[in-house]
Amino acid sequence: MLKIENDIYIGLLHYPIHNRKGEIITTTVTNLDLHDITRVGKTYDVKKYFVINHLKSQKALIKRMMNYWTDGYGAEFNKNRKQAYSIMEIADNLQEVIKKITCISGRKPKIVATDAKVFPNSISYKDMRKKMLDSKTPYLILFGTGWGLTENTLELCDYILAPIYGRGEFNHLSVRSAASIILDRLLATEWWK
Amino acid sequence: MLKIENDIYIGLLHYPIHNRKGEIITTTVTNLDLHDITRVGKTYDVKKYFVINHLKSQKALIKRMMNYWTDGYGAEFNKNRKQAYSIMEIADNLQEVIKKITCISGRKPKIVATDAKVFPNSISYKDMRKKMLDSKTPYLILFGTGWGLTENTLELCDYILAPIYGRGEFNHLSVRSAASIILDRLLATEWWK
Repeated sequence: MLKIENDIYIGLLHYPIHNRKGEIITTTVTNLDLHDITRVGKTYDVKKYFVINHLKSQKALIKRMMNYWTDGYGAEFNKNRKQAYSIMEIADNLQEVIKKITCISGRKPKIVATDAKVFPNSISYKDMRKKMLDSKTPYLILFGTGWGLTENTLELCDYILAPIYGRGEFNHLSVRSAASIILDRLLATEWWK
Repeated sequence: MLKIENDIYIGLLHYPIHNRKGEIITTTVTNLDLHDITRVGKTYDVKKYFVINHLKSQKALIKRMMNYWTDGYGAEFNKNRKQAYSIMEIADNLQEVIKKITCISGRKPKIVATDAKVFPNSISYKDMRKKMLDSKTPYLILFGTGWGLTENTLELCDYILAPIYGRGEFNHLSVRSAASIILDRLLATEWWK
């Protein structure tokens, strides 16, 4: 069984994100985006889950939730959640995330974007796994919370993952579901063998 | 590429469910359990997503959400969500669900439980896919919202799926993440080939 052993980081972008009109905005924090994605992250042994938001009020909200589950009543009530929240960090922007990863893993990460659209340079899950197996590079996988990542962000990315298709054409998954499926496809040991 | 073409149904149990002390309870409805799982269900071409709850007040809440997204303002605002919500139904109990499926698909479904624990008769994802490929039987995949399904429910099930492991021992996924990963593992076309 081939195991992916790279340092994996994930990031949830609240800014810069497109809204449905194509304008650049900052989306607001959703409780369960923190909850669910940090638990998936911990399950797939992600080193850090960066919540990327530049607004003071939103960052305060994220921090309050983190404190509740790592130090507050929540930490006592649910120890698994404390463990999960230990991988979460807040960052202002992508540059700060890249700097932190480079510091932790000793080298710059390859950046992988995820999007529900197909791009000329979209990469399949099979090929992405192969790339991870062939190198020791750390990877940063980016998820967006609005209507798609901006061109500026996509230009910074080394790869754009193919959209997830199930059995049919409908592919409007929540970011929580998409992150779960993507981490499973890229990082699970080969259960199909 | 082998495609799973069986009629697939999913059910979310709010009752009977264990709480953390092992007592039998009814869990309360969580907004995003409806939102996220119905979108995953639609993505994987699930025929019906049954939300199983026997409490009048809780059923009224679920109905209100369904109406909002299929007929109300939400249906206008977000057409994808209307499409997703079209597969959702409310049921009082598992017996009612089995009856409805038998009526729609013309035969009784095989019932598949999901649980974060290992059982002596747990089945792997690979073997479960094989079983689906080898028959035309409809399948009902059951997800729980508390601390595990009750013995009575498990006894009604034909199979219990193995827990999801990522890269390590932590396996405390939300039901939304677990449902996403399980439907992807069982129903996606073979992206690894």
